[in-house]
Amino acid sequence: MATPTAAMIVIGDEILSGRTQDKNMHHLAGELTAKGIPLTEARVISDEAATITATVRELSRRYTHVFTSGGIGPTHDDITADAVAAAFDAPIDVREDARALLAAHYAKSGTELNAARLRMARIPEGATLIDNPVSAAPGFTLGNVHVMAGVPSVFRAMVASILPTLTGGAPVLSESLRVIRPEGEIAGPLGALAAEFPDLSFGSYPFIKDGVFGANVVVRGTDASALAKAVAALRVTFPDAA
Amino acid sequence: MATPTAAMIVIGDEILSGRTQDKNMHHLAGELTAKGIPLTEARVISDEAATITATVRELSRRYTHVFTSGGIGPTHDDITADAVAAAFDAPIDVREDARALLAAHYAKSGTELNAARLRMARIPEGATLIDNPVSAAPGFTLGNVHVMAGVPSVFRAMVASILPTLTGGAPVLSESLRVIRPEGEIAGPLGALAAEFPDLSFGSYPFIKDGVFGANVVVRGTDASALAKAVAALRVTFPDAA
Repeated sequence: MATPTAAMIVIGDEILSGRTQDKNMHHLAGELTAKGIPLTEARVISDEAATITATVRELSRRYTHVFTSGGIGPTHDDITADAVAAAFDAPIDVREDARALLAAHYAKSGTELNAARLRMARIPEGATLIDNPVSAAPGFTLGNVHVMAGVPSVFRAMVASILPTLTGGAPVLSESLRVIRPEGEIAGPLGALAAEFPDLSFGSYPFIKDGVFGANVVVRGTDASALAKAVAALRVTFPDAA
Repeated sequence: MATPTAAMIVIGDEILSGRTQDKNMHHLAGELTAKGIPLTEARVISDEAATITATVRELSRRYTHVFTSGGIGPTHDDITADAVAAAFDAPIDVREDARALLAAHYAKSGTELNAARLRMARIPEGATLIDNPVSAAPGFTLGNVHVMAGVPSVFRAMVASILPTLTGGAPVLSESLRVIRPEGEIAGPLGALAAEFPDLSFGSYPFIKDGVFGANVVVRGTDASALAKAVAALRVTFPDAA
């Protein structure tokens, strides 16, 4: 079986303006890695219908799964559901199952299911709902696109709802070593090791902490035995690594 | 003058794997907004030469400026400079001015300018260097693409070096109000106000804090007087807003 692939689309002018720092991408990336569905690309785009539709169309053709966050609330700038429907040429309207979820949720607190809230029951034809245990308004999966909320607590709950339903690949294993040497001294031996283990990927992520230069060396791969051998070789090369 | 536009390319498997949370995008987004060069799109892509080259080519044609972070260190996985050169069909080799910067820097600490470190002096023909006051190895600008380091302290220093050299547009002003009401109650009056001020953008960013539902309502635009009128109207509509 070919390894499934994934892309994420973060929809939100508030991220692009620097007002808010996105946290959903980092969360999804970790969950997908653990599941064996590598995140290959992520995009942050603005709240524009044509941009959302074009990006969903492009990425849904290219990847096994596409995950979106943002733009499914009750306000006028929440246009993701309609834009995703357009990407698949699917009709969209208030759907009875989604409306029932909202009606039950708001009835509990005696809150009115007004016209704005009813917008959150707009679900494209053919989509499957994604459970939202936090605030009821569902996400949905249309084709290979999983449409989720931008509020981090709701996004996480939806990811937890949807991920167990997807088929993962072989999980990518990784080991990391913290080497307190400047990257310029790590580079030579690391490159040689990378050439010796062509099925593993070797990354070097430099840092500067309290004026000291170091790097986290990360080895990744699906073959546990090759990974163990490479890490043993790394420890010989960098005996001071933590 | 047309408003300049910008895109960012974050290059890094470590972000896509969920190992590291990117912080550079949020920093650049805020700086660009203040400068009047709106960030229109951001992408996180993997450390693959072909992907970097294709993405740089596509976005550099579409936007006034493209900013990249990551992949310009001394290790085998640092391939950004070569991939960006390829996007412009520019030859690339160790350049004397960059080598001199590195030589002077390493001479100070008696560190060897070895082959790995010399890779950081690979600069495409026709590029202008971007100053790196933190660790000397320069970034560069080739065409409209500004190539910078991934280490946040170095990235920030490079942004501070390059931004004053760019021509900004009219700064986008913004005001935000924190409304402690569920978004479903804000939506109606907010949509009406957005229709009344077509030249401003109205965003609603919901949150859940300690079980309480609220939203930050953000109004953006370049016309200070229209912005003030809209905010005054918002305060009348939502007298409880902070």
